[in-house]
Amino acid sequence: MREIGIGIIGGGYMGKAHAVAMSAVGAVFNTALRPRLEMICATSDASAEGYRTAYGFARATADWRVLVADPRVEAVVIASPQDTHRAIAEAAFALKKPVFCEKPLGADLADSRAMVAAAQASGCVNMVGFNYIRTPASQFARALVARGEIGTVTWFRGEHTEDFDADATTPATWRNFGAANGTMGDLAPHMINAALALIGPIARLSADIASVHTNRPGTDGRAVNDDIGQFICRFANGAMGHLSFSRVAMGRKMGYAYEITGTTGAIRFDQEDQNALWLYRADDPADIRGFRKILTGPAHPDYLPFCQGPGHGTGYQDQIIIEARDFLRAIETNTAIWPTFHDGMEVNRVVAAAHASAQSGAWMTL
Amino acid sequence: MREIGIGIIGGGYMGKAHAVAMSAVGAVFNTALRPRLEMICATSDASAEGYRTAYGFARATADWRVLVADPRVEAVVIASPQDTHRAIAEAAFALKKPVFCEKPLGADLADSRAMVAAAQASGCVNMVGFNYIRTPASQFARALVARGEIGTVTWFRGEHTEDFDADATTPATWRNFGAANGTMGDLAPHMINAALALIGPIARLSADIASVHTNRPGTDGRAVNDDIGQFICRFANGAMGHLSFSRVAMGRKMGYAYEITGTTGAIRFDQEDQNALWLYRADDPADIRGFRKILTGPAHPDYLPFCQGPGHGTGYQDQIIIEARDFLRAIETNTAIWPTFHDGMEVNRVVAAAHASAQSGAWMTL
Amino acid sequence: MREIGIGIIGGGYMGKAHAVAMSAVGAVFNTALRPRLEMICATSDASAEGYRTAYGFARATADWRVLVADPRVEAVVIASPQDTHRAIAEAAFALKKPVFCEKPLGADLADSRAMVAAAQASGCVNMVGFNYIRTPASQFARALVARGEIGTVTWFRGEHTEDFDADATTPATWRNFGAANGTMGDLAPHMINAALALIGPIARLSADIASVHTNRPGTDGRAVNDDIGQFICRFANGAMGHLSFSRVAMGRKMGYAYEITGTTGAIRFDQEDQNALWLYRADDPADIRGFRKILTGPAHPDYLPFCQGPGHGTGYQDQIIIEARDFLRAIETNTAIWPTFHDGMEVNRVVAAAHASAQSGAWMTL
Amino acid sequence: MREIGIGIIGGGYMGKAHAVAMSAVGAVFNTALRPRLEMICATSDASAEGYRTAYGFARATADWRVLVADPRVEAVVIASPQDTHRAIAEAAFALKKPVFCEKPLGADLADSRAMVAAAQASGCVNMVGFNYIRTPASQFARALVARGEIGTVTWFRGEHTEDFDADATTPATWRNFGAANGTMGDLAPHMINAALALIGPIARLSADIASVHTNRPGTDGRAVNDDIGQFICRFANGAMGHLSFSRVAMGRKMGYAYEITGTTGAIRFDQEDQNALWLYRADDPADIRGFRKILTGPAHPDYLPFCQGPGHGTGYQDQIIIEARDFLRAIETNTAIWPTFHDGMEVNRVVAAAHASAQSGAWMTL
Repeated sequence: MREIGIGIIGGGYMGKAHAVAMSAVGAVFNTALRPRLEMICATSDASAEGYRTAYGFARATADWRVLVADPRVEAVVIASPQDTHRAIAEAAFALKKPVFCEKPLGADLADSRAMVAAAQASGCVNMVGFNYIRTPASQFARALVARGEIGTVTWFRGEHTEDFDADATTPATWRNFGAANGTMGDLAPHMINAALALIGPIARLSADIASVHTNRPGTDGRAVNDDIGQFICRFANGAMGHLSFSRVAMGRKMGYAYEITGTTGAIRFDQEDQNALWLYRADDPADIRGFRKILTGPAHPDYLPFCQGPGHGTGYQDQIIIEARDFLRAIETNTAIWPTFHDGMEVNRVVAAAHASAQSGAWMTL
Repeated sequence: MREIGIGIIGGGYMGKAHAVAMSAVGAVFNTALRPRLEMICATSDASAEGYRTAYGFARATADWRVLVADPRVEAVVIASPQDTHRAIAEAAFALKKPVFCEKPLGADLADSRAMVAAAQASGCVNMVGFNYIRTPASQFARALVARGEIGTVTWFRGEHTEDFDADATTPATWRNFGAANGTMGDLAPHMINAALALIGPIARLSADIASVHTNRPGTDGRAVNDDIGQFICRFANGAMGHLSFSRVAMGRKMGYAYEITGTTGAIRFDQEDQNALWLYRADDPADIRGFRKILTGPAHPDYLPFCQGPGHGTGYQDQIIIEARDFLRAIETNTAIWPTFHDGMEVNRVVAAAHASAQSGAWMTL
Repeated sequence: MREIGIGIIGGGYMGKAHAVAMSAVGAVFNTALRPRLEMICATSDASAEGYRTAYGFARATADWRVLVADPRVEAVVIASPQDTHRAIAEAAFALKKPVFCEKPLGADLADSRAMVAAAQASGCVNMVGFNYIRTPASQFARALVARGEIGTVTWFRGEHTEDFDADATTPATWRNFGAANGTMGDLAPHMINAALALIGPIARLSADIASVHTNRPGTDGRAVNDDIGQFICRFANGAMGHLSFSRVAMGRKMGYAYEITGTTGAIRFDQEDQNALWLYRADDPADIRGFRKILTGPAHPDYLPFCQGPGHGTGYQDQIIIEARDFLRAIETNTAIWPTFHDGMEVNRVVAAAHASAQSGAWMTL
Repeated sequence: MREIGIGIIGGGYMGKAHAVAMSAVGAVFNTALRPRLEMICATSDASAEGYRTAYGFARATADWRVLVADPRVEAVVIASPQDTHRAIAEAAFALKKPVFCEKPLGADLADSRAMVAAAQASGCVNMVGFNYIRTPASQFARALVARGEIGTVTWFRGEHTEDFDADATTPATWRNFGAANGTMGDLAPHMINAALALIGPIARLSADIASVHTNRPGTDGRAVNDDIGQFICRFANGAMGHLSFSRVAMGRKMGYAYEITGTTGAIRFDQEDQNALWLYRADDPADIRGFRKILTGPAHPDYLPFCQGPGHGTGYQDQIIIEARDFLRAIETNTAIWPTFHDGMEVNRVVAAAHASAQSGAWMTL
């Protein structure tokens, strides 16, 4: 058991999630590396100090360069706005420090490519935080597909849908402006990452992207970014796919959901019931064939955060703790951990292709 | 109360469904017009006679022209293969007889256009049988959208998915050859009709259509038709849409399912639980807001076949009886009844556009 | 194929259901015996004549003795109030006519015993209509238990819950007075019959029965009957059980639901989703173990009314048609058909024991 | 913000859960009192030292008296076997230290009564850990009942069912012997506590309790304790109830589930989908009335552990963190916090009454 100094940049929702995870992960998983909450960085000294005391860090700073350079910060967690990701990561890698970066990797494809190059040049552990994919259910879905439980995949449908911006009278915020903050920049990466992980590379796609509420209070005549997007696609293995994304999907709270159809079975998942994975197997006897509602639990020990007893259920924070464990393990063993920065860049590539297709009205080949 | 002589062409699955419906509809709905099972037509004298005794018709024939021309046949139900629809309908309309035609209307768009012209020239009642749309739940969904319960529709996703051809070792049949018998010809019309009914006309679409199992036993090197298809689209009102269709959707038995998102609510439906309609209303108090599982029943009297008591549930055959009732009412009152032949033709137009888009790789405007 | 003249006593909800079933059953199942709607009996000449024309009977009467005695009435369906069941059945059996009787068999246990004696003395086919038990799902559940799919049953929980009387401001009707019309008389027999069919005889029970709304408008100081009841029990095979019944179960439309736990599996069913049966099998591999949602369909041919295609769904009326088929088959082959009058009497015995236990506060042995 | 030294007795499943919770609660809720993991106690020096390093405590001991007496231990968490609860609590209260005790409170009713007396004499904060009741959904259910959302409660059905002992070939362990370790001692308290919290005191009950698997490997002729139990009851307010408990409920992983029926609505919950609460409201318009699936989230801020974003979901560990927060708040403000030791004793009383009723075969009045 050895301590490792953690620096987190960003103290908001995700910064807090990672701070809690780093506090808890040692006890939960009895990790060999034990995080020490060394430094938190926020946009001002005051807010940084507030986060420091709230989350229990040793020190605080308003300058991420100070954090990255500090010798007691041995690993860096990036939970700040997208347009800061690249510079922080490059600085950290230059100092040979492992980096965990919240999704999406870069603010655009160029940033992501530079970040991948920096990571590879450094040889350091690098990991992207897509969070939801680390539920026990989704991890198990990946394993089921990989072990051929449903045969050859022929169809994938995924969505990431929420309704936090569905009310047209909600005033515009920074989220409603700038390509990176729209639905394709903010929500789409989650499900694109899931699709790539579950099925494999996307070969080509035809997309449609739109703004639904263009006259919110506070818009003041400015063009708003995208509320909704979708594409049909073919994966490299020939499977047909459809992905859709929305922040105006009235009624959907965490519509991170997918269905995977194979030649001998099918899988369904919806994050709104995150402890259940549905599996259909064609080789069950015909009269007792049906989708099985599998509750993740002790029978899935590789994917669980903390559940020696039956059916206890995992929540959002558990996923983040699993991410922390995996990041620490990668550092300890100096091995690559999925999703790497390269995986994160692949997600950016798909987002870029979708934008291009939506603009040109043509299929795009990746 | 007055009798009306019914002639049904086709004695297979749908012919039987309509025969049963015509037997039962009078008692169920106390209709003013009472069907008399006058004549059944099948492909041979023997099979026609078999159907006659099984279903209780007065007479049988192997020649649909005999049936159409018979003076005691006052209304014609077409439940024969698609390529026979046009000639039968034209003959019936020429004799001023009302026609109920199973979906899809014509074998191709040209046939459908001719059928619409014949129907309009005759002034006779004409109706297409899309069956599933007549569940109480889907009829009620239409009413909810129409009365503005969910505001302006911004998104529609629909599917018609089954798995009857999902097993790659199932030998090829006639269903696997010929454009009209593929998934786009056989299954897609159901959900396209639903989309048009629930949301309105489709303005443009980008499609992808494919064969999944190309080497079934019995294929003998012949090209098989489509197993799976999908398109993204925009409706004339600006709403974004996605429709998908499959007969190889392992695990899906009757995946006639849709979700409709509006600015103040949302609706969900899945025919596999056909008595439930899910409704989300944005103006419910925030802490008790959620999708309501509405069970169709006595509170929805306009749509129910037979249910004075609570929660009794409707099945597939009930939908067909409702169709029979609506067809009889239209004849009695000499009024148009949705979906007319024109509505059926609109479905064919969308199917044709999807094929064209899938071939060209470009968006098609309708 | 041979005609059989059917006489139905009672033209209300259940009379109509059976009339429709007798109209449709021949075409649906291609039965050897073909029902001829010979005579309908109602409480007045006018209402009988109304039902005659509505349902398509040849003749009508206000005197059930006329119907029973008529030589062209070859089988009698009793759908009239409970206190008329016994006299009608005795008269029909005296004339050696088969009888189908709506549940509950008799108005009390004494009536039921007399009816069983009359049926046995006559040697005629006798059957009780518990309706819901004839869904494909519940028939299949019986088969699964019988073939040992879930091992030895250790627990049964069943309910029949509705909310048609849940609103305390609904004025009292005849349903609110008289022991036979309360929840224990009206609803409990359905689920008790299911329990006996699925698990076997009940050995002893401890019950509680109550009126919930005692001051409805129109009660006028009279004592109302029971709204709600329940008992814990042991089956003869040692399994523990719980049954509950309510007409004031706010939110429940057709809560005919049960769960059966065995040593190697479990089954769940809820009539509000009547085409689904849930099965858990302990010998599935641990990581893919879960309740399977089995949709009744072509894989369950013995139980389906009419479904050559996949996933079409059965409704309430379908169950009644299945009952009609089974009644006709029993007549044709002169064999006993479950549930016989004896089975119906066993249900009355349990109801009587529950009343006795609720009054005495002690366990009752049956 | 002020530190408080925490001592936890027991390092197993629940000891770990509370250690993790005490590590995380400060950051999650920005609590005024910040736990310092001061000392862990286990059955041997070696295991205590193992837990110390795994969970991050400052010190370890094999003697709970050392822990309780240590001046740096300012609050005591009891997560050791039931028969140790009383002595530990009495010692802690004698030193005026607040105590959080895992359920059930005492090994029997006498122990519980003594513990309540000691708590009251000390004036210290005392709290029982029933865990599941602290999900956001169940807390919200309590609030909904309390604010009259469903009117007057007329019916409650609750269960705590799992299947960890359902396999008859699983060898016997300590869990299979001793009244306190059976289903009534181990599982029943959870749902009894829920019933008391949601509805109020139980007035009388009639129970049945049984062993299902009496010949497990390793039983060696010894009498095993109870696998399954249930009772029907009346609450003090007149509502009828049913509670059941099982560790042999094949297929159930965390069947902590209840339904509450009131005069104007109903509530349903199942811990296997722990982020959903189902609510039916009778005053919704008839045609859009149905159970609403409410996902706990930002609209329920009082009950959530950590969820500023929508639909993120809470897991088992989150409940324990909420308990830790509530315990700390009670200490900080020196106020009573539900469930107190008195509440825990009330649960023991019901368990005792159920045992008595099951033995005598008579209703028991509490």
